[in-house]
Amino acid sequence: MEYPKLILDLVDSLRQFSGVGQKSALRMIFQLLGWEREEVFLLAELLNRLREEIGSCPVCFNLSEQGALCLICSNPKRDKRIICVVANARELFALERTKQFKGMYHVLQGLISPMDGVGPEKLKIQELLGRIDETTEELLLALSPSTEGEATCLYLRRLITNSGKSLRVTRLSYGMAMGGDIEATDELTLSKALEWRRELA
Amino acid sequence: MEYPKLILDLVDSLRQFSGVGQKSALRMIFQLLGWEREEVFLLAELLNRLREEIGSCPVCFNLSEQGALCLICSNPKRDKRIICVVANARELFALERTKQFKGMYHVLQGLISPMDGVGPEKLKIQELLGRIDETTEELLLALSPSTEGEATCLYLRRLITNSGKSLRVTRLSYGMAMGGDIEATDELTLSKALEWRRELA
Repeated sequence: MEYPKLILDLVDSLRQFSGVGQKSALRMIFQLLGWEREEVFLLAELLNRLREEIGSCPVCFNLSEQGALCLICSNPKRDKRIICVVANARELFALERTKQFKGMYHVLQGLISPMDGVGPEKLKIQELLGRIDETTEELLLALSPSTEGEATCLYLRRLITNSGKSLRVTRLSYGMAMGGDIEATDELTLSKALEWRRELA
Repeated sequence: MEYPKLILDLVDSLRQFSGVGQKSALRMIFQLLGWEREEVFLLAELLNRLREEIGSCPVCFNLSEQGALCLICSNPKRDKRIICVVANARELFALERTKQFKGMYHVLQGLISPMDGVGPEKLKIQELLGRIDETTEELLLALSPSTEGEATCLYLRRLITNSGKSLRVTRLSYGMAMGGDIEATDELTLSKALEWRRELA
């Protein structure tokens, strides 16, 4: 006896999530069979609405209601002189939770990664250049300190220099995590923390 | 800026899966935003159909089409003299994949676990007793060798003895995993493998 076709189809569908294989998909399905009927219907309804209602902002490519400017681009109180460049909307929300940054964002929708066949043309880089004008004072590259993040930083750096636009290009600082433990911090981070040390205030 | 309400609702819904917290739920949602629209709709449709179409077999509590006997109970070629007792339908399918066992099953829908407040009355034990008649020759307890599995085995063993029914009660053997490595096998399994050793054929 094999699983009913409906369950096999559902396994195939769930396996599209990264990190979900056949076993985890089956585990999820058996859990679903134990949920209240209404809870399963609600999940299905939310999924149906997701792609209908959530799109990307036509300016910064943050999440937004379908076709509309996002809540940041449409907020007149945000500081238009600084654009913070992030790889994806999840990182944007992580930065927003700090409540530190009051400027604008630009979501690249990825990082340059030749290994995965992602070149600059697949990212929202032209759109970023198009947004930079004489009122833009600073471009904050808030990209993860990975190989791909570094490559994307360097690429954007060069592009800005070559374009002749004059603005500050900055990046997030590297260093110890708050509450971190020197012994448990990796060597690369520690050497950055030494190199980027600051005067005690 | 916070996530749109639709996304927060979806996070709440997905967090009902065990092992899925806020971060994994958001990761899944951002993946969904990258899926083809039709793929998301298909997932929603399959979820809607799941609870409508899949129920439990009224005899053995295996998965079945809503209200119908399962494919095993309705198969006249299966051997009705032996009933294999499993905790859940996933384990039933694992046993079926071996293509070894041609008897019937009974899905308890759980194991006795006083810690989790699961007593025998929450399992399909009365239904199991009700199925055992003079044609039943063997009850194979295929329960995991965990505390809960052992407790359930002992409980069922005593129940059968007290009921005065005469039939063999068996269990799966313990021992080395095929392709296993003696050094990597835990002590409890190794001592079972010694105790349950067999003549070299």
